[in-house]
Amino acid sequence: MQPVESYLAANHDRFVRELCEYLRFPSISAQPQHRDDVFACARWLTKHFQSIGLEATLRPTPGNPVVVAKTPRAPGSRKPHYLIYGHYDVQPPEPFDLWHSKPFEARIEGNRLYARGACDNKGPSFAHFKAVEAYLKTGTELPCDITFVVEGEEEVGSEHLAAFLEENRRELQCDGIVISDTGLVSPKHPTISYGLRGIAAMEVTLHGPSRDLHSGLFGGSLDNPAMALCQLLAQLRDTKGRVAIPGFYKSVAALTTYEREQAKRLPFGAAAYRKFLGVPKLFGEEGFTPHEQRSARPTLEINGLTSGYQGDGSKTIIPAWARAKITMRLVPNQKPPQILQLVAKHLRSICPPTVRMELSLGHSGEPYMISAESPQVQTALNALKKSFHRDPVLVREGGSIPIVNDFKRILKKDVLLLGLSLPDDNAHSPNEKFDLDVFAKGLRMSACLWPELAALHGASGTPRKPRPRRA
Amino acid sequence: MQPVESYLAANHDRFVRELCEYLRFPSISAQPQHRDDVFACARWLTKHFQSIGLEATLRPTPGNPVVVAKTPRAPGSRKPHYLIYGHYDVQPPEPFDLWHSKPFEARIEGNRLYARGACDNKGPSFAHFKAVEAYLKTGTELPCDITFVVEGEEEVGSEHLAAFLEENRRELQCDGIVISDTGLVSPKHPTISYGLRGIAAMEVTLHGPSRDLHSGLFGGSLDNPAMALCQLLAQLRDTKGRVAIPGFYKSVAALTTYEREQAKRLPFGAAAYRKFLGVPKLFGEEGFTPHEQRSARPTLEINGLTSGYQGDGSKTIIPAWARAKITMRLVPNQKPPQILQLVAKHLRSICPPTVRMELSLGHSGEPYMISAESPQVQTALNALKKSFHRDPVLVREGGSIPIVNDFKRILKKDVLLLGLSLPDDNAHSPNEKFDLDVFAKGLRMSACLWPELAALHGASGTPRKPRPRRA
Repeated sequence: MQPVESYLAANHDRFVRELCEYLRFPSISAQPQHRDDVFACARWLTKHFQSIGLEATLRPTPGNPVVVAKTPRAPGSRKPHYLIYGHYDVQPPEPFDLWHSKPFEARIEGNRLYARGACDNKGPSFAHFKAVEAYLKTGTELPCDITFVVEGEEEVGSEHLAAFLEENRRELQCDGIVISDTGLVSPKHPTISYGLRGIAAMEVTLHGPSRDLHSGLFGGSLDNPAMALCQLLAQLRDTKGRVAIPGFYKSVAALTTYEREQAKRLPFGAAAYRKFLGVPKLFGEEGFTPHEQRSARPTLEINGLTSGYQGDGSKTIIPAWARAKITMRLVPNQKPPQILQLVAKHLRSICPPTVRMELSLGHSGEPYMISAESPQVQTALNALKKSFHRDPVLVREGGSIPIVNDFKRILKKDVLLLGLSLPDDNAHSPNEKFDLDVFAKGLRMSACLWPELAALHGASGTPRKPRPRRA
Repeated sequence: MQPVESYLAANHDRFVRELCEYLRFPSISAQPQHRDDVFACARWLTKHFQSIGLEATLRPTPGNPVVVAKTPRAPGSRKPHYLIYGHYDVQPPEPFDLWHSKPFEARIEGNRLYARGACDNKGPSFAHFKAVEAYLKTGTELPCDITFVVEGEEEVGSEHLAAFLEENRRELQCDGIVISDTGLVSPKHPTISYGLRGIAAMEVTLHGPSRDLHSGLFGGSLDNPAMALCQLLAQLRDTKGRVAIPGFYKSVAALTTYEREQAKRLPFGAAAYRKFLGVPKLFGEEGFTPHEQRSARPTLEINGLTSGYQGDGSKTIIPAWARAKITMRLVPNQKPPQILQLVAKHLRSICPPTVRMELSLGHSGEPYMISAESPQVQTALNALKKSFHRDPVLVREGGSIPIVNDFKRILKKDVLLLGLSLPDDNAHSPNEKFDLDVFAKGLRMSACLWPELAALHGASGTPRKPRPRRA
């Protein structure tokens, strides 16, 4: 490992220059006028992989191409095989006037590299590319076979990725997937995200009179759909912050003692968090910490309410209808279709006969979790500790990343989420940046990871189970 | 009375022609481009009153003029003095394309006269003008002194009427006010409206986080203002249709046995009414009929709900705020300012500490009621019975007419509401009409009214109390 680490240190400045080159492509997948830039970026990346010594190809899809790059491997290799996923497309940079420098200039100020795509996801995935380069260029044997899968449609919903994985299932057969596209709690808290919440969306509309009615002439003799909706929705959450739908928590995986211990190690100040949110008082399910509430517990949220008159002043009507948009965040082992059916059934059962209910079930996504005590996670913790020289933290994230489920579903393997993006890195916002100290740590993390994972699998490629450790 | 009735019958066709002339003025008070038409209409009306034999003047206000016309009176007359209120301004006619003939053409089809302003309020008030003409032109002594007060701003809120009444309080001192600007239940049900509901408006906004938040990253650890609003509003009405605010019903005048008997005489079919409203099932305060619920009982209605995302699809946010527009319909003897304070206090007391409440108290208007058993109402019932040859009905209306309270407050006298506008007359809608049979009955009603009211007052001008009768 010594030559690899020396190479990483000696070549750091060049890596940053190359990353800047990568960042200067305005590879904005959402904007058709940047289609050429997206393709140019993919071609540059393919050549870059080839220059490192990888067998790299540009794979067409009905949308933007996927870049696939493989480390050289011996015929009949028994090494563990890992995929590293990343994306070369970026969010639109607008609004331009809020940027302190041009979004595709790639400006360095101190240890910060400013550019659209810096932390999401060109910088973090570049750390993996360069760690592999260090192995190859120093003639150090890579303990794993590695395949990079870098797509160009992550910011527009990864429309063609699942089909690509299906079509290339045999080639992409592996022992696990590594993704660095999540968050790093702080530079002092190297982070593994071992769980993500799922989602299920629905829309409830209550129809009352056939048109808005004069509230003076008719009010009192018919139900008001806006009031009926409020009374319906009010029943869906109790005063202790729990979703009040029979059966909703039935499949929820309880937090283990190990998980709750790990969560306690996260830096958290209630006063600062309350101030950051801008609320008068925090509120959540009784018996859980705010971090647990927002990552490991399911929720039902009203995302929007619409009824009647919304302009200035007042309009004395009984609205013809009232509508709520609802999404639920789900956790293992809740199943979105089952939950949607459960909620729809409950709503129908409590809907008064004085209004007509219209339910529209929307998109959904499975929750994801790899056991925090699993061999792969425990092994990754070792790699993080060695590279960051800090005790890593284990977190669940409250959001949903659908591609993680695609990998799990199609390739039947777990995903290791090793985030390198800081909370203030402005992903999706103006002045996106990547911390170059984190980049250096990420390079070492990736380099450390492969011997650790290889040791886990042993010669047979089957992971041995280590004892869970205090991370 | 015989010469008066003969005159009314003999001159009916001319009356209709003159009414058409009156209707051809597009006296639309809401539209500045029609200001000249409004004034021209007022001048025409003044001259018309003069041609009948009244002392008529055009009285300027900061807005549109008020036409005041008085029957000739002997110096030191001891006759009872009644005001008749009407308005010569009309609603805007838009949308034009829904009219079957031009709104200011005044088209007659069978017994229907189509024009903007036909029923609201030129036609009904014209019946009073012509009944007085019949007395004057036949040399029949009018048993009452009568003053017409016809304003030009009713459709834009009667902004200057209260000040006009204040300034001319002495001149307008009277024994009562007659207004024909309400509804007639059907041609078979001559109608006196003896009560109107009041109104009080407010807006409730609950503020949560300082901006819309990602429901995945943060959901579960803070309250959702849309949910908090639903839970707040849901508590304001119980399952029996009662407003669930302590003290809300404290001042409500109970319906008398006489009132409830009268209400039972109204034609009402629950199935037809439900179909007319277009609701799956009627709903209202337990223990009251739909007619009572919508006219004699107070309500709290949500007129609008606004929160978060309202577009297509879904947006996974916790909204920064949620707002409801609320109006209450009030009945005697509820006081709007007291009720607003009561509701505001209650809302503050049940608002959870997890959101910040912003309350904005809006406009309000007093409820109005003249006792159904009062001498004036009972006397008017006689006049209606004689002119329509049908038993009249006594109703309360659910809407609010602020000027009625202005008359009561400033002149300290009761208002008799003798409606001549049918439910299908399309007031404020395209194809507004006035029923010419109702016009004929209205002419006789007005002619019958003055001897009856005079008899009531006797020589002294103080009403005697007759026994309530079955109307």
